[in-house]
Amino acid sequence: MTSSDSQQAPLGVFDSGVGGLTVVRALRELLPNESIIYLGDTARVPYGSKSPDTIRRFSMEDTQFLVSHGVKAVVVACNTATAHALPTLQATFRVPVIGVLEPGVEATLSDPGCERVGIIGTAGTIRSSAYQYALAMRKPGLQIHATATPLLVPFVEEGWTEHPALKLVLKQYLDPLLEKGMDTLVLGCTHYPLLMPILNNMLGKKVRLVDSASTCAAHTQRVLEQQNLLRTARSKPSLEIYLTDLSEQAEALAKRFLGTDFGKVKKANL
Amino acid sequence: MTSSDSQQAPLGVFDSGVGGLTVVRALRELLPNESIIYLGDTARVPYGSKSPDTIRRFSMEDTQFLVSHGVKAVVVACNTATAHALPTLQATFRVPVIGVLEPGVEATLSDPGCERVGIIGTAGTIRSSAYQYALAMRKPGLQIHATATPLLVPFVEEGWTEHPALKLVLKQYLDPLLEKGMDTLVLGCTHYPLLMPILNNMLGKKVRLVDSASTCAAHTQRVLEQQNLLRTARSKPSLEIYLTDLSEQAEALAKRFLGTDFGKVKKANL
Repeated sequence: MTSSDSQQAPLGVFDSGVGGLTVVRALRELLPNESIIYLGDTARVPYGSKSPDTIRRFSMEDTQFLVSHGVKAVVVACNTATAHALPTLQATFRVPVIGVLEPGVEATLSDPGCERVGIIGTAGTIRSSAYQYALAMRKPGLQIHATATPLLVPFVEEGWTEHPALKLVLKQYLDPLLEKGMDTLVLGCTHYPLLMPILNNMLGKKVRLVDSASTCAAHTQRVLEQQNLLRTARSKPSLEIYLTDLSEQAEALAKRFLGTDFGKVKKANL
Repeated sequence: MTSSDSQQAPLGVFDSGVGGLTVVRALRELLPNESIIYLGDTARVPYGSKSPDTIRRFSMEDTQFLVSHGVKAVVVACNTATAHALPTLQATFRVPVIGVLEPGVEATLSDPGCERVGIIGTAGTIRSSAYQYALAMRKPGLQIHATATPLLVPFVEEGWTEHPALKLVLKQYLDPLLEKGMDTLVLGCTHYPLLMPILNNMLGKKVRLVDSASTCAAHTQRVLEQQNLLRTARSKPSLEIYLTDLSEQAEALAKRFLGTDFGKVKKANL
């Protein structure tokens, strides 16, 4: 590809399911001229409860699918896949591969007053210690408390984001972090931006929320600028969505995460 | 295989994950002389939120794995796989293939006073209408109310089977069924036997609970007897557990579902 071909090529984004569309939503707000190919591995979702080996194998297959569709860069819009597979993906593929984790860490530390950080995510993300390690390396002495919160994705997918039962679940997960005096909470899962209203309501202004979807979009913009990969064409950019399993439920969820309607979803066979 | 070889061969059992071990537990209580090979597709769990085509493809691969390990019969210890794939599996494989659904239907109708039935299960099981159809065919005029309860599996897997949040979730799911005067509740998912205590506590004696794990074991016993396939050897029967993804979490859950410890879990590559 010439430099101009690369510029016009779409950006590839993948996630274990449709949660990563919160990242696509943020990317489209920030980079409205970019074409995007999204792959959601809905046949094998979730990744968060599975082993590092399996997560790496799935992530390699997802990235290969996007690369074979000619993308100029790959955004790993899944915290679990980023935590376990990012170095392998970066070592394997020639296009830039961007994760959600590093931007979240940068955003967390952008406030110099940040002293006690809570992190919530899937069992896989938390067990990887990837956030904990990256934060501790950048700011020695930072107090870090991480907790796996596996019930949150099912609540978001059920659409019960204001339910009293969810409040009890969040209280159980977050009370130990609040007792430690947490001033910042990292939402380490691309499903969690949909919990912003209930979290703001429960935590008030005491706790700053860091959302990995919007910080990842900002980081992607910087990478594309630095590598001279921003799309220059004036034609309307495209959005293609591939899922490995098609169901009404997944399509309905996808619309909620993306915040808008889209054309026909295509089936990807991995 | 000669008739005696078939008798000594193990029984195959598969599920989307480790929930089907509640069926293995019931089988071992009822048929303590049988050897069992269990396959849990933990790399692709859950099936309940996925499409019929994908569920059929996964179920065919699971059954093929067990058949290639020489089993004499296959128990589909997963309501979603039974609902979507049982006829295909029975038409494809020569060994008897036994599902969880039909035994649950029989047990439901064994009480002649049963007039208003509630059914809970995954989105896939409920959307298939398999329980609703089988019950309506056997007892025309029966009032049937089915509801998908996707949050219950995550609560069971988190181990929060007595949590106040679970009570609120169950209330939200079950109140509409109670308002319709339900006298019998079918637990249409092999994870749900672990909810028996909280359900008995909430529903009291008003509602009879039908658990698909124990009814499936009783049905399997009848099939083995009828087909002269009961194991006659006096040596100690074996229990082999294969999972498509190995993780500490899955092994810990497996022990809870099986109610006992077991040897090393093996990795199956499908």
